[in-house]
Amino acid sequence: MCAQLLEEKVFKDPVHNYIYVQDKVIWNLINTKEFQRLRRIRQLGTSYLTFHGAEHSRFSHSLGVYEITRKIISRFERNKYEDWPPEERLVALCAALLHDVGHGPFSHSLEEVFDTDHEQWTCEILLGDTEINNVLQQVSEGFAQDVASVIQKTYHQSLVVSLISSQMDADRMDYLLRDAYFTGVNYGNFDLERIIRVLRPYKGKIVVKESGMHAVEHYLMSRYQMHWQVYFHPVTRSSEIILRQIFRRAKQLYEAGYRFKWLVPSLEQLFTNQLSLEHYLKLDEALVQTAFSQWADESDNILSDLCNRFLHRKLYKYVTVTKPEPEQYSAIIEEMHQLGLHPDYYMELDFPFDKPYDVYEPDRHEAKLTVKTPILLLDEHEQICEISQKSDIVRSISGLRQGQYHLYFPLEIIKKEERRMSPRLKQWFKL
Amino acid sequence: MCAQLLEEKVFKDPVHNYIYVQDKVIWNLINTKEFQRLRRIRQLGTSYLTFHGAEHSRFSHSLGVYEITRKIISRFERNKYEDWPPEERLVALCAALLHDVGHGPFSHSLEEVFDTDHEQWTCEILLGDTEINNVLQQVSEGFAQDVASVIQKTYHQSLVVSLISSQMDADRMDYLLRDAYFTGVNYGNFDLERIIRVLRPYKGKIVVKESGMHAVEHYLMSRYQMHWQVYFHPVTRSSEIILRQIFRRAKQLYEAGYRFKWLVPSLEQLFTNQLSLEHYLKLDEALVQTAFSQWADESDNILSDLCNRFLHRKLYKYVTVTKPEPEQYSAIIEEMHQLGLHPDYYMELDFPFDKPYDVYEPDRHEAKLTVKTPILLLDEHEQICEISQKSDIVRSISGLRQGQYHLYFPLEIIKKEERRMSPRLKQWFKL
Amino acid sequence: MCAQLLEEKVFKDPVHNYIYVQDKVIWNLINTKEFQRLRRIRQLGTSYLTFHGAEHSRFSHSLGVYEITRKIISRFERNKYEDWPPEERLVALCAALLHDVGHGPFSHSLEEVFDTDHEQWTCEILLGDTEINNVLQQVSEGFAQDVASVIQKTYHQSLVVSLISSQMDADRMDYLLRDAYFTGVNYGNFDLERIIRVLRPYKGKIVVKESGMHAVEHYLMSRYQMHWQVYFHPVTRSSEIILRQIFRRAKQLYEAGYRFKWLVPSLEQLFTNQLSLEHYLKLDEALVQTAFSQWADESDNILSDLCNRFLHRKLYKYVTVTKPEPEQYSAIIEEMHQLGLHPDYYMELDFPFDKPYDVYEPDRHEAKLTVKTPILLLDEHEQICEISQKSDIVRSISGLRQGQYHLYFPLEIIKKEERRMSPRLKQWFKL
Amino acid sequence: MCAQLLEEKVFKDPVHNYIYVQDKVIWNLINTKEFQRLRRIRQLGTSYLTFHGAEHSRFSHSLGVYEITRKIISRFERNKYEDWPPEERLVALCAALLHDVGHGPFSHSLEEVFDTDHEQWTCEILLGDTEINNVLQQVSEGFAQDVASVIQKTYHQSLVVSLISSQMDADRMDYLLRDAYFTGVNYGNFDLERIIRVLRPYKGKIVVKESGMHAVEHYLMSRYQMHWQVYFHPVTRSSEIILRQIFRRAKQLYEAGYRFKWLVPSLEQLFTNQLSLEHYLKLDEALVQTAFSQWADESDNILSDLCNRFLHRKLYKYVTVTKPEPEQYSAIIEEMHQLGLHPDYYMELDFPFDKPYDVYEPDRHEAKLTVKTPILLLDEHEQICEISQKSDIVRSISGLRQGQYHLYFPLEIIKKEERRMSPRLKQWFKL
Repeated sequence: MCAQLLEEKVFKDPVHNYIYVQDKVIWNLINTKEFQRLRRIRQLGTSYLTFHGAEHSRFSHSLGVYEITRKIISRFERNKYEDWPPEERLVALCAALLHDVGHGPFSHSLEEVFDTDHEQWTCEILLGDTEINNVLQQVSEGFAQDVASVIQKTYHQSLVVSLISSQMDADRMDYLLRDAYFTGVNYGNFDLERIIRVLRPYKGKIVVKESGMHAVEHYLMSRYQMHWQVYFHPVTRSSEIILRQIFRRAKQLYEAGYRFKWLVPSLEQLFTNQLSLEHYLKLDEALVQTAFSQWADESDNILSDLCNRFLHRKLYKYVTVTKPEPEQYSAIIEEMHQLGLHPDYYMELDFPFDKPYDVYEPDRHEAKLTVKTPILLLDEHEQICEISQKSDIVRSISGLRQGQYHLYFPLEIIKKEERRMSPRLKQWFKL
Repeated sequence: MCAQLLEEKVFKDPVHNYIYVQDKVIWNLINTKEFQRLRRIRQLGTSYLTFHGAEHSRFSHSLGVYEITRKIISRFERNKYEDWPPEERLVALCAALLHDVGHGPFSHSLEEVFDTDHEQWTCEILLGDTEINNVLQQVSEGFAQDVASVIQKTYHQSLVVSLISSQMDADRMDYLLRDAYFTGVNYGNFDLERIIRVLRPYKGKIVVKESGMHAVEHYLMSRYQMHWQVYFHPVTRSSEIILRQIFRRAKQLYEAGYRFKWLVPSLEQLFTNQLSLEHYLKLDEALVQTAFSQWADESDNILSDLCNRFLHRKLYKYVTVTKPEPEQYSAIIEEMHQLGLHPDYYMELDFPFDKPYDVYEPDRHEAKLTVKTPILLLDEHEQICEISQKSDIVRSISGLRQGQYHLYFPLEIIKKEERRMSPRLKQWFKL
Repeated sequence: MCAQLLEEKVFKDPVHNYIYVQDKVIWNLINTKEFQRLRRIRQLGTSYLTFHGAEHSRFSHSLGVYEITRKIISRFERNKYEDWPPEERLVALCAALLHDVGHGPFSHSLEEVFDTDHEQWTCEILLGDTEINNVLQQVSEGFAQDVASVIQKTYHQSLVVSLISSQMDADRMDYLLRDAYFTGVNYGNFDLERIIRVLRPYKGKIVVKESGMHAVEHYLMSRYQMHWQVYFHPVTRSSEIILRQIFRRAKQLYEAGYRFKWLVPSLEQLFTNQLSLEHYLKLDEALVQTAFSQWADESDNILSDLCNRFLHRKLYKYVTVTKPEPEQYSAIIEEMHQLGLHPDYYMELDFPFDKPYDVYEPDRHEAKLTVKTPILLLDEHEQICEISQKSDIVRSISGLRQGQYHLYFPLEIIKKEERRMSPRLKQWFKL
Repeated sequence: MCAQLLEEKVFKDPVHNYIYVQDKVIWNLINTKEFQRLRRIRQLGTSYLTFHGAEHSRFSHSLGVYEITRKIISRFERNKYEDWPPEERLVALCAALLHDVGHGPFSHSLEEVFDTDHEQWTCEILLGDTEINNVLQQVSEGFAQDVASVIQKTYHQSLVVSLISSQMDADRMDYLLRDAYFTGVNYGNFDLERIIRVLRPYKGKIVVKESGMHAVEHYLMSRYQMHWQVYFHPVTRSSEIILRQIFRRAKQLYEAGYRFKWLVPSLEQLFTNQLSLEHYLKLDEALVQTAFSQWADESDNILSDLCNRFLHRKLYKYVTVTKPEPEQYSAIIEEMHQLGLHPDYYMELDFPFDKPYDVYEPDRHEAKLTVKTPILLLDEHEQICEISQKSDIVRSISGLRQGQYHLYFPLEIIKKEERRMSPRLKQWFKL
């Protein structure tokens, strides 16, 4: 069942213009219900509250990653590079298409509150009783497992893994271009066609011809800019904080025996950490938004207030602070309690760089990974070196790591208690 | 309260690059919960099932209409045209921003099944007990009513009305550009800046300098192309048909006393035609999608099947047919019944031009209107004439009206009964 | 010598992003001096005086026509269409690249005044003693002749001819996109990738899949708009008129024995209709502009004035007139003479449609041809029909032919004689 | 004569879409013959031999600088900044428009060979007997001198000077965007609208709101990329080397009494350093190209060969070398002489960074200046600091200065003598 379609099919895509499907397997995978579900999960989570155009879904991003991978491989084939094993084409394309299929709604926030992991779900979807597994099985015995192992980075052909997950892989290339397009922030544009032209398979790795060094620099600068302009935008951080607080509060209430006026089984299973695959697949952003809309009428004030804030975009404000000493922070929390302000919900300290993000080295998606694939240059004498050894720009941005602590809180609520506050607390909130 | 903001605020927008807010009223209106709700309603309804990028919301479109109106008026002011009454600026901007605020989820489909009307809801939102009304009231006594009357096209200053609703108004200009951008279909691009430069206020009407005739032709051709490439796309029609069938089936079941496993008050009020404003505002596309996801598990086969089709994009196929004679059509329906195929749900005849749409004259949004505002040219001798009198292109496309009848149906289900079908029915479905 | 390059080479191109060269022949042709000469001839003649960005050369256009042809053929090959003869690839690519190589400076104007023809020169360059001929000869005996016959439309494979010269060929597609890009007029944009996707070789002709009809309509509307917005722009017409008058005056003076302070052999040979290939190749736009700059100091007032007008863009003004009766026109000319105003130089009547241009049928480049290749649709039943039989838009624009007579003249000079003019002449110039 | 035009005029521009002219003075300046002459001088000199789209003229760049300045000032006026003196508007606009009016053909190369300086010519054109001076005089006594002093950076209002010449002025902003557009290299794109929004006049300086720091970083990275990708491109360097060698050879021949078959007074005056303004204005790129085309037939072999190389783009090849020791270099030159290879013409060592260029600090245009205007940030407490103190990116790129030595030479000619060469010389040319 590795058949080609009788006629190439296309999807109209604003970023790549057209996405070309030539293989029946790819076509069938796109038409599974598990893949169609990605239409109901946004690529950028709550960023649409900052950039109103950023409503694009993981469905379109997944098609984009597939398309970039397809273009890279086509060029490898056209140039007949010896280091490219042609039989790996289909497994690479399937892994590119499916690498994000296990994502849930607002994944990063959800995974911080609940014990769930989208990469594990991806494997369950690929290997469990699903339409996707059914399509993959028809290619060959073991094909589904191969695709899963590419996504888990354990596949025996490291070249295929590095196409999908490395410092400059099809995933990152698509999301930078796509997020730039839909937010309207043009900092994420780089010359994709040129990058594709300078990639080479070489001894089990994807490397970059040295003549393409400036194109890589440009790509890395785009990443740097997108992190600061879009991914770390304080308004987005504020909405993520509220989202996590809603999840936390709902879970806490559930565990305390609170009777919700409105609840569905998928959410109950989420609260009790007993999600079945069937109910995980029903967990989409429509459901989360509906829950928030219904919970806005719950009797618990904190939950109701937080839901209204999220829906109507009455987000927390922030001030820039210096990192407090532990005892100072305890005292602040103590006083909050005394004033009747729940410190878990009415205050959150955020430090974008406190995460293992780094503009160059690690990355927002695979933050947990410890082993990174560096970008390698191949010079005219077929010598390989890591890019920051040749590029001053890359070397200088590799080490950058400073950021600022931001304190987020509901300004009107905090202000009401201003008169009762100690000078220290007032200063903390910069009132 | 017509105050200017201390500092101009901006929204980053992919279509207009930046949207500028200078008035405190506009800023406050955008921050109301009724306006924020538009983030949860897509501009193009089910089109995202055809064009995966088309996830953009009515929120972004409404900002766009406001921005185009702001630009037109700024130019009128900069050129000090005598026919432009400067005191109408704010009412025009508010009407532009709010003209779509009453839209519900998948409005056009919803309104075909239920007795509800987004224009009426717009008025209720402007004049009822809402945050929007509260902001408008602070401008002056009667201001909310003025804004509403612009949207209802009854405002005493016809110039203001024609900015917002005419054959070439800020609404159409924004949606053509925006829909083109998010679908990726570049047919909708026209030269907005040039169109704005050739508009003139003239004796209570917006007219076009004759030198801008070709720019208007280009705009009308863009409209024509967008109708055929995007708005009438058969896949989109198919998904709208299924959407309406779900609504119809659910209503029918409700009226027949069926007990839904899952229902919320907003939907019950919709079924019984007793929607309160509060519950109408909870009716967003997240809720509709959640309902479909939950109803996929209902025991009614038809409802469950339709919901799965919508969610997993297993849409109806279509064949092109000639319009059947009434008696022929009755016989077909009769046979469908006999075969146990519900003709209301397993078949739908669609004729995009059977609606009072016309590429030039009437329009997809205000299809009910009978009086249209033509596009007027102003020549160098200050004479006015309707554009199709001067432009061959416009004249030739004004009359175009033919289309094709498409028959939509669930191919696998119909095929199952093929052997039991009469030759006539087989031919009808082109089996 | 049909060798492939060891490594694909690219040219950075603003319109197609990259232009890919895979064949050594193509690379060598580009590097000949006759092809490099096209860098010194503008694609749009005097249009840069209207649209300051329109400085692009025939060199870049020729590369673009090659690239579009290459893309079309690559798709034909990828889809293994039986009707495409693979051995015709190289002859088609060479013809695409070289089809304009015989153009001289401001060709269309030059050819109206002098007895010279760029298509003949193209053949001489391909078949004469040139670097280009040398490269072509190395492919095979007769190859140069084959390429020439494609350009002359006499090649035995009509399919190859129609790629290069038809109503929707690679030539037109590139120039519409390129002229739109460099003028900044976005009316010329159409979806090239989509057009390429719907083209098919079919029984010796290039046809269009019926599903691509709207894409073709969009392309034809782009052509229509570009003709009106760019190619027929009155300021461009005015500069072309002056250009022709300069050529006419210089030739007239030369024939009358006037001694030019400045002249070069190429121009002398042009005046006497005895151009050798060597001197034709020296005739570029740099030389023409230098001539005008030097002739601005000639003692002949008419020549000097015209040259200054062209160089400093003091063009003729125009008024719209109705076509005069012959006797009326003779009387006007008579009075001009009496007033001492040379009617050949101080007045020119222009009617853009008096030429055999037509938006759809004929074309600005091959205006002399009488047999045109219509655009053919291929329907799902493999039936072919001419597009205007299916498309209302195309049918309605096919017949359009009206235009306006414009009278061009030097306003300040004519005005000086106003008092001495008859009422008829005053009215003629609309003074 | 500070009159406004009755109706705003526009130029269609590919970079800024439209360029708006509101002042009669600006309109009249554009229509002078000295300004129109800029149409015949390319913005990027010989870069069109590397990037075939880069044919754009200094005319279009000058309009662009004017337009950016107009937009910045309009925003200053709209926001009623106290530190902006409104009476300076016209002088700033005129200086922006005219800052490059003294440029000659291939200026930078020309000025390296001949003793001429475009800034001096700019002053002569503004203050001498020209149409431009005539227009400026009509504004007021001393206005022409004011405009000239802005360009010379001696104007009493330093704010106006810094609009036109600083590290982030209207000149640089336009050329980065324009060169990116016409070459097709998209590295030069940055968000102009955003940069304009964060500029402030402040105590006689243009400063940047701190919130705009990332936009400035992006702009500086664009500059960095454009230098490496476009301005320092080895093919462009090679063509500039040949250009300078042609000028040098022609001058040398002239001084040695060589009788040119073809010469014009402007070139003779250039050789003898006695250029009158009248003849300087005739020196455009058309003339230079015509000269090369005619000199290709001169009897001097070196001149003829160099001219053919330039016209037919048979440029010098290059190898990367390490900087030779002086005595080593002398020996090389000595051996070249012995072999009959003129070392002045058949070899040139180039080090792009040997010039006082620097990505951030100095600049390719005003290389001679020693005092630079740094980019200043204005924080929320109205404190000013230089950007590299806040931005890690800027700090890290400020110091970068390394480059590579390239040796350019005519490969075929050098190769012919290979057998006679010493091993040292062979190694030098990497044969």
